[in-house]
Amino acid sequence: MSKQKPKAVVLLSGGLDSAVTLFFARQRYNPFCLIFEYGQRHNKEIKCAKKIAAEAGAEYFVLKISLPWKGSALLDKSLSVPSVKGRPSKNIPITYVPARNIIFLSYAFSFAESIGAKKVFIGAHIQDYSGYPDCRPEFLESFGRAANTGMKNSRIKIEAPLIRKKKKDIIKLGLKLAVPFELTWSCYQGGRKPCLKCESCYYRMQGFKELGMTDPLLEK
Amino acid sequence: MSKQKPKAVVLLSGGLDSAVTLFFARQRYNPFCLIFEYGQRHNKEIKCAKKIAAEAGAEYFVLKISLPWKGSALLDKSLSVPSVKGRPSKNIPITYVPARNIIFLSYAFSFAESIGAKKVFIGAHIQDYSGYPDCRPEFLESFGRAANTGMKNSRIKIEAPLIRKKKKDIIKLGLKLAVPFELTWSCYQGGRKPCLKCESCYYRMQGFKELGMTDPLLEK
Repeated sequence: MSKQKPKAVVLLSGGLDSAVTLFFARQRYNPFCLIFEYGQRHNKEIKCAKKIAAEAGAEYFVLKISLPWKGSALLDKSLSVPSVKGRPSKNIPITYVPARNIIFLSYAFSFAESIGAKKVFIGAHIQDYSGYPDCRPEFLESFGRAANTGMKNSRIKIEAPLIRKKKKDIIKLGLKLAVPFELTWSCYQGGRKPCLKCESCYYRMQGFKELGMTDPLLEK
Repeated sequence: MSKQKPKAVVLLSGGLDSAVTLFFARQRYNPFCLIFEYGQRHNKEIKCAKKIAAEAGAEYFVLKISLPWKGSALLDKSLSVPSVKGRPSKNIPITYVPARNIIFLSYAFSFAESIGAKKVFIGAHIQDYSGYPDCRPEFLESFGRAANTGMKNSRIKIEAPLIRKKKKDIIKLGLKLAVPFELTWSCYQGGRKPCLKCESCYYRMQGFKELGMTDPLLEK
C-alpha cells in the first residue's frame, strides 16, 4: 500500500476554478473540502460543489454562514448582476462581497489546524484579482502570514496554483486532470442554464472559445 | 445637536473584557456589535452580550457560526474545562479554539466595510495572549494589514484598547465607564453561577480581589 497522502483543505465553490484546484490538489494531498452556503444568489453552486467533491473522492463540510449586511449583488436580490458589454471593467464589480475570501480562509485555517493539514488550497487567479481585492497574491501572502501568527500550528501555507493562469490555461489544466466540467457551475445567476451574460459566464465562455471547444455544460 | 459619531464595529462576547471595550468605544464612536454563537459551552454569554449591547444603546447582530471540527474544550462537551490550580499555565489552554479571533475579525471587517466603519474594536489583552495566539498584538497588527490588502476600503483599523492591561486595570476602567459588570459573564462553564475554578473565573476573581472588591455578579 502506498504511503498515505498528507491532508489539505480545499475551498470549493462549485465553480470551474475551485474544481480544477481540487483535482490539482488531490494529486499530492488527501483533500478535505469546505463548501460555503452564504446566501449567494447562485446557490446552485453548492449542489455542484458536493457532486464535484464526491467525484474527487474528497470529504467535505458544507458551512452555512450568514452575512446579514447586504450591498453585494451576489447576496442582495434587489441588486442586479450586471451584463458584460465588451470586456469586463477593471474596477471592483458589484458582485464583490466584502471580505468573502478573508472569511473563507479563516475557516479553512481553523479546519486545517484541527485536522493537522499544512496546506489550504484556493482557486483564486489573475483574472479575478483584477477586480476582487481578496484574490490578489499580495493579499493571500499577507493573510497567510497573519493567520499563522494567530495560531498554535504556525506552518499552514496557502496554495493558489491557478494564481497566474488565465481561464484558458485553467481549462487546459482541468482537461489534463479530467475535471468533470459538466458538474461545475460558474454563472452568478442561479438559473437552470448559464445566463451567458454575467462576468463569470463571460470569462468561462472566452476560455473554452480560445481552446476551440464547447463548454460541456452547454452540451447537456 | 452634536455631530454624529463615526461608526465602529465591536466584537462583543458577553464577557467582562468586551463589555469594557464596548463602553470605551462608545465614548467616541457609534458602536455596532457582533455577537457570535459558535457552539460555545458557555452559551449564556450570548444572552449577556445582548443585554450589554442594549444597555450601551448599541445595535447588534448575533451571528450563528458553525465550527464542526471539534477539539477545543469550549466547543466539545466530551472534553472538560480544566480547573486552575495555583497560577494558570503559560501554555495554550485546551479552551483554545483554532482561529477563533481570525474568524471573528474577518466577519467584523466585512461588516465594517459594509456600514462604512473605520474601526474594529476587540477586547483582547495581555493576560489572554499569554495563552491564546490570536490575542497577541503582533497577530492583531498583522491581521489588520492582511485584511486591508484584501478589501475595497483599505483603511479599517483594529483597536484593542485593553491590550496592555491586566484584569485589575480593565475592571478599574470599567468602573470609570459605568460598565454593568453584573450583566457580564466570564465563566467557561455555562452554569447558573460562575464555577470559580476555570481560568476565566480565576482572572476575574483575581482582578476584583486586587481592587478589594466583590464581583457584583457574585452579589446577585
